[in-house]
Amino acid sequence: MTLTIPTTYKGLTEVTAIALAKAVYTFEPTAELSCREIGDGNLNYVFQIEDSKTGNRVIIKQALPYAKIIGESWPLTLKRATIEANVLRKHGEFVPSLVPVVYAADETLAITVMEDLSHLVIAREGLINGQNFPRLSQDIGEYLAQTLFHTSDYGLHPFEKKRLVAEFTNPELCKITEDLIFTDPFFDLETNNYEPQLQSTAEAIWKDQKLQLEVAKLKKSFLTESEALLHGDLHTGSIFASTTETKVIDPEFGFYGPIGFDVGLFLGNLIFQWITREGIERQVIASHIEKTWDVFAFSFSELWKRESVESFRDTQGYLEFVLDKVLTDAAGFAGCELIRRTIGLAHVKDLDSIAETEKRINSKEQALYTGRALILQRQQIDSITDFLKILQEVYK
Amino acid sequence: MTLTIPTTYKGLTEVTAIALAKAVYTFEPTAELSCREIGDGNLNYVFQIEDSKTGNRVIIKQALPYAKIIGESWPLTLKRATIEANVLRKHGEFVPSLVPVVYAADETLAITVMEDLSHLVIAREGLINGQNFPRLSQDIGEYLAQTLFHTSDYGLHPFEKKRLVAEFTNPELCKITEDLIFTDPFFDLETNNYEPQLQSTAEAIWKDQKLQLEVAKLKKSFLTESEALLHGDLHTGSIFASTTETKVIDPEFGFYGPIGFDVGLFLGNLIFQWITREGIERQVIASHIEKTWDVFAFSFSELWKRESVESFRDTQGYLEFVLDKVLTDAAGFAGCELIRRTIGLAHVKDLDSIAETEKRINSKEQALYTGRALILQRQQIDSITDFLKILQEVYK
Repeated sequence: MTLTIPTTYKGLTEVTAIALAKAVYTFEPTAELSCREIGDGNLNYVFQIEDSKTGNRVIIKQALPYAKIIGESWPLTLKRATIEANVLRKHGEFVPSLVPVVYAADETLAITVMEDLSHLVIAREGLINGQNFPRLSQDIGEYLAQTLFHTSDYGLHPFEKKRLVAEFTNPELCKITEDLIFTDPFFDLETNNYEPQLQSTAEAIWKDQKLQLEVAKLKKSFLTESEALLHGDLHTGSIFASTTETKVIDPEFGFYGPIGFDVGLFLGNLIFQWITREGIERQVIASHIEKTWDVFAFSFSELWKRESVESFRDTQGYLEFVLDKVLTDAAGFAGCELIRRTIGLAHVKDLDSIAETEKRINSKEQALYTGRALILQRQQIDSITDFLKILQEVYK
Repeated sequence: MTLTIPTTYKGLTEVTAIALAKAVYTFEPTAELSCREIGDGNLNYVFQIEDSKTGNRVIIKQALPYAKIIGESWPLTLKRATIEANVLRKHGEFVPSLVPVVYAADETLAITVMEDLSHLVIAREGLINGQNFPRLSQDIGEYLAQTLFHTSDYGLHPFEKKRLVAEFTNPELCKITEDLIFTDPFFDLETNNYEPQLQSTAEAIWKDQKLQLEVAKLKKSFLTESEALLHGDLHTGSIFASTTETKVIDPEFGFYGPIGFDVGLFLGNLIFQWITREGIERQVIASHIEKTWDVFAFSFSELWKRESVESFRDTQGYLEFVLDKVLTDAAGFAGCELIRRTIGLAHVKDLDSIAETEKRINSKEQALYTGRALILQRQQIDSITDFLKILQEVYK
């Protein structure tokens, strides 16, 4: 079969997806290929092509030129497919075992052909169902340290770093984050989406000038601090996991931003689980939070000692300053994530799926109070123990 | 005369400069044009083309593909000519009276055809000669407020801001700043250039771990904080002045960086004058420092109130936070400038031209101590009065 790549964007079908997969992935000559579209249809097509003889599979992800959110259709740049493929490849240079392999990508079709990961589950789903992912925090801590160190000014020549900053400029998707995480939830806007029982708590947030000021500072950091090439949307729905594997997917929001943003989004999403769990099950999540930070800080420090190109790498206190800033920023960004996923446009299943109303509303209030505390007290956080203490204190 | 623009870089001659000037600038039909090369020949050719009948003049500045510093020849990107022309045009949108008019620019030839300013003097030269420029601080304060506000996230839609960040990526010239301002002077390197009498003070700087840590933080800010489109080299040698006019030239180091960098470089260069003067003459400089800040802060605040696109613009304390950060950063960057111009590669005439050895060495030590104090105490600076107090205290 001859493959003609269209010169303009065109949605794939199961037939054209198979043709494309054969062209860029080496199936057995005798392969018998079938294809299913397994995406949720909101933002992307996800075609899974399988050789029924060997079980070999490959994924073709194609960006749709719009996003469907609560019934509405927003136009959305197709360039995000190229950003996603290029972030996966760049991060894959440093953590090949923690991201899917990219076999091919095409900017016109907005597709990425990549490793199938359907033997894994989405971490958020697994955590909600009480699954245990013993490697999760170790792997994500390592992912964060490797990808963020190696794309920072500490790991790169400034020419290469500045080239990457320009390559990964991502205005459209950064604007979505800017609005949905840093702006809309902190004002009384129609785009917000919250349960009526949360009205007074939401109003308190909109009136809280101290909180608003700190969120403004965090937004400024998001808009101006080009520290490293971020995943940009590192919640537990962007992670595939099992008891033995972890794979980070979907970096279409990737851009050069503050290191603490990736760290904080991940920790914030673990906190949703911390809130909904009790006793020993909660302790599992507390351990994940602690271990994520410990592994990140240890690996980042080791990379700094072994590979840093920074002239001030041996200056007393500089590495500590950099790590302190990451933790402080991460607490603030985690706080914004907790608030925006509770009263903003896009929610998390961790909270929304709690069937019992009283427990669900309590958990959501808890998320709002914890978010507020992390944002306001972040400058006093000197260790991950301090971070966890804030979670506990909100419950008193 | 037909003008053929070469398709590769070629150094202009006085003859080709005249031809080019005629093609892009409207001289009288009867003009009698002559041309002189008036540059210092280190980095650029500067051709001044004059109509002897009317006195009308125009400047063609052409970047050389190398820089001559202390006899050596460094290759240097020609792209800096395009950056310079584009920064002049962008800043000219906001302060047309404070930058030269750009009539034309060509990337291949690395030329900018612009307004002749030879009726003015370079502010550094004038200040060294004791000239008074009553408009200098008023105009530079306004220049800083207008150019920096309007190119920041407070003045621009995020799409346009990110487009400009990518357009004005300037890796080669930023690397020069990184090395010459933030790195080399703080280590015992051969590129440094200082008088033997300063050996022990220089060594104290290289051993001062507290100072090194603060310089590392300032360098991090320079490398990562994309707050606004900076001039990038705003010393008093980049300013033409008279008693009635001020024009900012030479923004070839322009890039998106921390707002305090432009403010701090200008204040730092005023401090060299503060150090070399006494009594009422020193007071003139103190007034310039104070007025630069006051005008900047006032105009920036007015723009914020009238034109800010930031959702948190009315949040209590946010504008104050932004201005405090600019002043703190400016103090630190001014401190780096004081140190690097004294023991680093590139010096200032303010200090080097002091004929009497003891006075010169004392002034240079003063510059080093003042630089150190500004860097170390910058977090305690809450007003321009605090800033000036640090200058005075170093003298005790």
